[in-house]
Amino acid sequence: MAYKQVIVVRADLGMGKGKIAAQCAHASVSALEKAEMENPGDVREWKETGQQKSVLKVAGKMELLELFEKVKKIFPTALIRDAGLTQIAEGEMTCIGIGPAEEREIDKYTGKLKLL
Amino acid sequence: MAYKQVIVVRADLGMGKGKIAAQCAHASVSALEKAEMENPGDVREWKETGQQKSVLKVAGKMELLELFEKVKKIFPTALIRDAGLTQIAEGEMTCIGIGPAEEREIDKYTGKLKLL
Repeated sequence: MAYKQVIVVRADLGMGKGKIAAQCAHASVSALEKAEMENPGDVREWKETGQQKSVLKVAGKMELLELFEKVKKIFPTALIRDAGLTQIAEGEMTCIGIGPAEEREIDKYTGKLKLL
Repeated sequence: MAYKQVIVVRADLGMGKGKIAAQCAHASVSALEKAEMENPGDVREWKETGQQKSVLKVAGKMELLELFEKVKKIFPTALIRDAGLTQIAEGEMTCIGIGPAEEREIDKYTGKLKLL
C-alpha cells in the first residue's frame, strides 16, 4: 500500500512562494504530529517509503472549510491559520494538512483537486 | 529568547510553487526530527511560541552546500534531495532545513539571505 500526506492551499490569498512554503511546512508538521498519535503505523510506512507529499489547491475559504469538515473525521488533519505578521490578515485560514494516510483513501477526498 | 526554524531554498531550479512547498515541508519535518533528538528544549520553546519559520533563498547549489557545511556543525540541519519524480533531476539538492534554534544564533549564518 502507498501512503502520502496531502497539503491543500487556498489559491485566493495572493501569498508569495515563501509564504506558501512556510504555511505548508506548518501544515505538514502539525498533521504529522496528529498522525503520530493516532496512526503511528501509517507514519512509519510513509517515512520508510520516501515521505510522499502532494500540494494541491482550492479556490477559497469555503472550499477549504468544506474539505476540512469532511476529512477531519477520517484522517489526522491540521487546519493552519496565519499568525498575520506579514502579507495577510491575522487568523486567516491558509491551508490544511492531511495525513500521512493511505493514498487510496485520501484520494477519495482530494483526488479531483489540482496541483498548486 | 526567540526561536525559529529557517528553510533555505535554491532559486535556480525553476521549481513551481507546489514543488517548493513540498520540498520545504520535507526540510521542516526532517530538521525538526533532528532537533527533537539533539535539542528538545529548543523545540519545546519554539512550539510554545508559535513555530516561527522563515523561508529564504540562495542563488544555487554551491551556495547551498557552503551554507550546509557551516551550519550542520552547529544546528540540527537536514539537506533535502528531490526524489526526482517530477520537474527536476533525481537526487538534486533542493533546500536545507535548520533548527528550530535560537534566532540570534541562526541569524549569524542566514541573516543576510533574502526571503524567497
